[in-house]
Amino acid sequence: MDILVVGSVALDSVETPFGKIEDGLGGSATHFSASASFYTPLHLVAVVGEDFPKAHLDFLKSRNVNLEGLQIKPGKTFRWKGSYSYDLNSAKTLDTQLNVFQHFLPELSPELRKKSFLFLANIDPELQLRVIEQCAAPQLIAMDTMNFWIGSKKEALIRTIGRVHMLLINEGEARELAGESNLVKAARKIRSWGPQTVVIKRGEYGALLFHGEEIFAAPGLPLEDVKDPTGAGDSFAGGFLGYLAQEWKASAPSLDLNTLRKACIYGSVMASFNVEEFSLDRLRRLTQPEIETRYQEFLKLTSFEG
Amino acid sequence: MDILVVGSVALDSVETPFGKIEDGLGGSATHFSASASFYTPLHLVAVVGEDFPKAHLDFLKSRNVNLEGLQIKPGKTFRWKGSYSYDLNSAKTLDTQLNVFQHFLPELSPELRKKSFLFLANIDPELQLRVIEQCAAPQLIAMDTMNFWIGSKKEALIRTIGRVHMLLINEGEARELAGESNLVKAARKIRSWGPQTVVIKRGEYGALLFHGEEIFAAPGLPLEDVKDPTGAGDSFAGGFLGYLAQEWKASAPSLDLNTLRKACIYGSVMASFNVEEFSLDRLRRLTQPEIETRYQEFLKLTSFEG
Repeated sequence: MDILVVGSVALDSVETPFGKIEDGLGGSATHFSASASFYTPLHLVAVVGEDFPKAHLDFLKSRNVNLEGLQIKPGKTFRWKGSYSYDLNSAKTLDTQLNVFQHFLPELSPELRKKSFLFLANIDPELQLRVIEQCAAPQLIAMDTMNFWIGSKKEALIRTIGRVHMLLINEGEARELAGESNLVKAARKIRSWGPQTVVIKRGEYGALLFHGEEIFAAPGLPLEDVKDPTGAGDSFAGGFLGYLAQEWKASAPSLDLNTLRKACIYGSVMASFNVEEFSLDRLRRLTQPEIETRYQEFLKLTSFEG
Repeated sequence: MDILVVGSVALDSVETPFGKIEDGLGGSATHFSASASFYTPLHLVAVVGEDFPKAHLDFLKSRNVNLEGLQIKPGKTFRWKGSYSYDLNSAKTLDTQLNVFQHFLPELSPELRKKSFLFLANIDPELQLRVIEQCAAPQLIAMDTMNFWIGSKKEALIRTIGRVHMLLINEGEARELAGESNLVKAARKIRSWGPQTVVIKRGEYGALLFHGEEIFAAPGLPLEDVKDPTGAGDSFAGGFLGYLAQEWKASAPSLDLNTLRKACIYGSVMASFNVEEFSLDRLRRLTQPEIETRYQEFLKLTSFEG
C-alpha cells in the first residue's frame, strides 16, 4: 500500500557539537518519505521554492517518492536554522524563514484523492483537516503535530485529531496537549478524542505505543555516535507507518498488535540510522540488510526469558 | 546467597502532588533491603538514633533483614525532607539533618566479614572502601553513588569504583562522573576503571545494562498512579541484586547475560511497585504472585517477533 504524505520540505542549517551543515535537505515530509521509502512507495504533497536544488528532487525520485503533488512556487524554499548542545534531546531554533511554505495550500489531484493510507506530517492542523476532507475513502490516517499548534490552535488541532486513526506525538507535547503529566492518562485522554492508536515519541528513550488495552515500549538504541537528531521523530514515523503500509492487506485491513509492535521497532531502527549523520545523509546509503541487522540488534537489546 | 548491605537508614518527609508523609521509613539501605528481601535474606549495616521507631525495626526483621550490624547511637536518626512537582523525575531537597549518620563508621563483625555478596548503597566512597577492605573474600561487590560525591570526592570515588564488580548509577550522574555526554562512551569509561558491569538507571525510562560487549535495555513500566518516587533507584538495585543473589551458585559463581537481563527486569518490577505509594508502604503488602504477574507485564510491554 503506498502512502500519501503531506508536510514540509525544507533546507536546514544545523549545528551540533559534532559538526554542521548549511542548507541541507530537511523538513518533516522529507525525513518521513526517505525513511518510509524503504518499505513502500510514496506520494509527496508539499511546496518548495524555485531555489530548491534539482539534486534533492532527483534523490527523492530515486527513493520511489512520487513528486507529482510537489508544488514549485516562485520564491524561496522554507528554511530552518537550529543548534543542539551536548543534550541532543532538544533543538534551539535560531531562525525560521517560512518563505513559500507560508502560503502552502495542499491541493490533491483526483488521483491522490483516492489514496487510502495517509500521513499528515507536522503542519497547521487546519491544513491537515483540509487534506483529510479532500480524501475520498481514507482507510488509515496518521498525523504528527508540535507544541506551536498546541499553543496557537488547540481547538482546531483537537478537531483534526478527532478525524485520524493514529497520532504520533512527542512526550512533552502529549503532556501539554492533554493537560496531564501522567503519560498513561494523557494517552487515554487523547484517544478519547478519536484516535485508536497513540504513539508517544521519547527521543533517545524510544517510544510508547498505546492501542486497545495494550502498551508497548520500544527502546531507543544506545548509539555511540549521534551527529544530528534533526528529523529523528519523522524518520521514526516513516519506519512505523512504512512498515504498516507494507503489511497492510487491502482486502482485510486491520492492525493487529504484533504488527504495530514490529512497526514501532522499525520506527526506532530508522530513527537510529537517521541521527548517525547530518540531514538525510545516512539514509542515502542505507541498505535493506543493514535495516534487518539493526532490527536484530533491537531484539538483542530487549529480549529476556519469560 | 544472602546479601550484606551498607548504607543509610532514614526518616523521610516527602511531599508530592499526590500526598505527603512525615518521618516515614526511608534511606538507601532500607529501600534496597525491603526490595531485595523478596529474593534473599539480608544483613543490614547502618546507624540510627535512639528515636528510631521500634515498629520499623520489627518491619525489617519481619522481612528477613538481619539487624545485628545496625548501630543504635545516642542522638537522632538521619532525616531527609524533600518534595516533587508533577515532574516526578527529580526531587527538591528541602532539608537534610545527618544527625547520627554524620559520624557513621561501618564496622563489620567477624561473622559479617565473611559475607561474599555485598551492596554498598550511596554513602561516602571512603566508607564504602572501608567496608570492602574489611571483607575477607568478597565474590560480588556492587555499589551506588550520587552527584554529591562526584562533586566533592571524585578521586576517592573512582578508587572505590576500581574495587567493585558492578556500579549502579543514575543517567545524569554517569555522564557527570565520566565527563562524557554519550552514555555508551560514559559506560565504557567507567568500566575501564574496574567494574565489569555498569547499570545506568533512567528513572521512568527504565535502565541500561552494560556487560561485556552487550547492552540490555529494561523499560520502566508506564504507571497510571505514581505517588512517591523516593527510593525507586534503591528498590531497583534491590530487585536487581536480590535476583542475582537468589540465582548465585556458590559452587560456580558466574553471571551469564540472561540472568543479568532478568535481574534488570526484576529491578524495574520492584521500582514500579515502590513508587506506587509513599515510603515503603507498597512493599509492606507486596506478594510474590504480584511480582510474578508484573514480571509478565514487562514481557508483554517489550515483546515483539523476531
